[in-house]
Amino acid sequence: MKRYEALADDIAVSIRNGLLKPGDRLPSVRQASASRHVSPATVFQAYYLLEGQGLIRSKPRSGYYVTEGVRMMPLEPDRPSAPDGEAHPVVVSKMVLEILQSAASRQAVPLGSAFPSPLLYPLPRLGRTLAAVATHLDPWSTVDDLTPGSLELRRQIALRYLLDGVQASPDEIVVTNGAMEALNLCLSAVCKPGDAVAVESPCFYGCLQALERLGLRAVEVATDPREGIDLDALETVIKRHRPAACWVMTNFQNPLGSAMPGDRKRALVSLAARYRLPLIEDDVYNELYFGQQRPVLSKSFDEEGWVMHCGSFSKSLAPGYRIGWVSAGRFTGKLVRHKIAASIATSIPVQLAIARYLERGSYERHLRGLRLTLQSRRDEYIERIAEHFPQGTRVSRPGGGHFLWVELPADADSLELRRKVMEEGISLAPGPMFTVSGAFRNFVRINFGHPCTSAVDGALARMASQMR
Amino acid sequence: MKRYEALADDIAVSIRNGLLKPGDRLPSVRQASASRHVSPATVFQAYYLLEGQGLIRSKPRSGYYVTEGVRMMPLEPDRPSAPDGEAHPVVVSKMVLEILQSAASRQAVPLGSAFPSPLLYPLPRLGRTLAAVATHLDPWSTVDDLTPGSLELRRQIALRYLLDGVQASPDEIVVTNGAMEALNLCLSAVCKPGDAVAVESPCFYGCLQALERLGLRAVEVATDPREGIDLDALETVIKRHRPAACWVMTNFQNPLGSAMPGDRKRALVSLAARYRLPLIEDDVYNELYFGQQRPVLSKSFDEEGWVMHCGSFSKSLAPGYRIGWVSAGRFTGKLVRHKIAASIATSIPVQLAIARYLERGSYERHLRGLRLTLQSRRDEYIERIAEHFPQGTRVSRPGGGHFLWVELPADADSLELRRKVMEEGISLAPGPMFTVSGAFRNFVRINFGHPCTSAVDGALARMASQMR
Repeated sequence: MKRYEALADDIAVSIRNGLLKPGDRLPSVRQASASRHVSPATVFQAYYLLEGQGLIRSKPRSGYYVTEGVRMMPLEPDRPSAPDGEAHPVVVSKMVLEILQSAASRQAVPLGSAFPSPLLYPLPRLGRTLAAVATHLDPWSTVDDLTPGSLELRRQIALRYLLDGVQASPDEIVVTNGAMEALNLCLSAVCKPGDAVAVESPCFYGCLQALERLGLRAVEVATDPREGIDLDALETVIKRHRPAACWVMTNFQNPLGSAMPGDRKRALVSLAARYRLPLIEDDVYNELYFGQQRPVLSKSFDEEGWVMHCGSFSKSLAPGYRIGWVSAGRFTGKLVRHKIAASIATSIPVQLAIARYLERGSYERHLRGLRLTLQSRRDEYIERIAEHFPQGTRVSRPGGGHFLWVELPADADSLELRRKVMEEGISLAPGPMFTVSGAFRNFVRINFGHPCTSAVDGALARMASQMR
Repeated sequence: MKRYEALADDIAVSIRNGLLKPGDRLPSVRQASASRHVSPATVFQAYYLLEGQGLIRSKPRSGYYVTEGVRMMPLEPDRPSAPDGEAHPVVVSKMVLEILQSAASRQAVPLGSAFPSPLLYPLPRLGRTLAAVATHLDPWSTVDDLTPGSLELRRQIALRYLLDGVQASPDEIVVTNGAMEALNLCLSAVCKPGDAVAVESPCFYGCLQALERLGLRAVEVATDPREGIDLDALETVIKRHRPAACWVMTNFQNPLGSAMPGDRKRALVSLAARYRLPLIEDDVYNELYFGQQRPVLSKSFDEEGWVMHCGSFSKSLAPGYRIGWVSAGRFTGKLVRHKIAASIATSIPVQLAIARYLERGSYERHLRGLRLTLQSRRDEYIERIAEHFPQGTRVSRPGGGHFLWVELPADADSLELRRKVMEEGISLAPGPMFTVSGAFRNFVRINFGHPCTSAVDGALARMASQMR
């Protein structure tokens, strides 16, 4: 743990145990620096972190204060999951599809939706960029920009990797139809049907759908609600099942919201290298971080090329455009072959539009606004849940992304709850969608990517009353 | 055989055996109608057919004449293929990829390319349509138009099916990232790894790439260079191997150019229904027909829903946009599940642009021009090949598409030939790309989708001299 993290943790404990109360002013940076014997920069970083966690707020020219909402902040889920350690065939797609389709109506209150509000994105500006590109499309780019994809786009993606301290050559990047295709191609490239794949517990249902479709078995690995996959548990699984790959969401995991600390990511990559285990890093939320610091990527520790880092613009810039990519390390050649065999190429005008936007647009400014909006929605949703939901509810407080993982009282049944609230026009993602084990029966995932309207507030109240 | 087909055949024989010579005028429609005891409409249809085959040409206000080029028309490959009838694991993708990549340079003479010239397509107009759609994109369409795809686009596709006499509901249509994704999803939906799939001999290498990637085995079925897959041979394969699917290109097969006559398609569908065999109809060239009549689709005989008809706009309208679809009959639900698990959805602005173009654009006018251009290029390429290539060369005369299948003298080695001409900047698709058996060593596929320039003429001459 770094110095600023230790300091932030200290202060967080003081807040949670009531030593510091809502509305209390924190020591100034100078005071804290003197009393704690750390540099002012360390204090600043600690305060930023606490602000990102919603525990304190800054008031201009006045200092930092403990957040008002803190008094009703529920606890977070804190026990790592305890999967059975077996490799299971995957049979989820019918159930998942039924739930997704029932959530697809625009009329439903979108608590169960997988997508943030499309109004969060610069679609008009992006549309004008696409218009300019489409109107002057060089016909030969429909041949030249086939797989691995537009060189201009791959260059722009490589430049973003530089922000993450990753030296990715455009030659290692393969443009795909969204991250979902990238992830499927990674699995196909390194797995044979029947192989086991290590996944988090709980894990993104899309991962389970992909495993099912490719005839792969899932081994769920214990995962901590804050710090992600448990590396000891993963090593045990590796020794026992020799999985053909490990699929992890290292940043703002769906559904947990967990983010692996940097040193844990480094250890994960060295574990993968030690066992020659292909690591599929599903990293579609990394741009949606709430603190001041970009999350570290496992890919940044990847000296031997075992990490296939999959990204997407669907959550950060361009929903519905379906542009993703993989930086595939030692597996690049296989990825290219699989991409060509699976879908030949990715839509070319759309690739060029994203490239042009990244080059000339205001991606950073858009992202700053997007992050702030999602962060404040996170806090609003948590406050509303804390107000309505019964005693014993625990809610994650993710440092990014747009999902809350909500642990309901032990006797709650989220599948039953979903059926009931669906009749009232409220969609919900019940915990059992995120596992092959049937566990997480008293968990739900709640999307906070839409405004916390009175309809949302009412829906949360209805859910609560259904639980009683 | 219909009456007009019989008449056309009669006349074709007279031309080929020299009874009718280049430049000779054919009897007028009235004369022929009287002397042959058929209706004038039948004569018209026969003349259209012969014109489509390049054997006769009409001169305005003067009548029909035997084509000048006829004197040097080579014979067509005429024996059906004779595959070994075994189910083979597929290992082609490295070889195919190497050949495709060596052909990708824009500088190479594109005889081996898989794509017609992009200049054949209304990309500027389509680009303006995409621009209009992108500028006014409803943000919610990025949610509503996810899989199965934009209802407007599925409606437009269903309307085109009506032209083919197929009553396809938009509900049976799933929009995909080009036909290649559709075909992969069809295979995934009905096959388990290790299953056998019946394919044509020779068959499109993309089919082999897809089988390889999904761990499926290929059973090649004897295929006639003009009339497509041999149904008796297929039935034998079905009985012996119980394949999980049959993948056929019914119209202007790649590489043969064969087109199954309507009655053969009907028999194919009834065979599939009898054995409950999923039939994957890869039909990406059906809009590129040269005669007056739209080719019949197997799908039009599909009463029980065994046919998954896969189409695409990549060859007919919008190269590089990557929009395809499948009309999946009884397998629609599975297709939707696989599409979501494989790539979630297809790029939405691009879907909407194609829908808008189909609704308001001049698709039919564009297609008429495209067909005439390709037809005349076919004849030019055949003439050039006839002039340069050695005695014993046979060239297909496809009624649509943009490929010639060229049988070189028996001792020619197309793999060796490709290596030699590649050094001179000429790409080539050698016969062994199209099989798992290593056969077709003395065949090449030649793309006539690019203008028959002096560079092309020179390249054909170079090939010929390399063969000597």
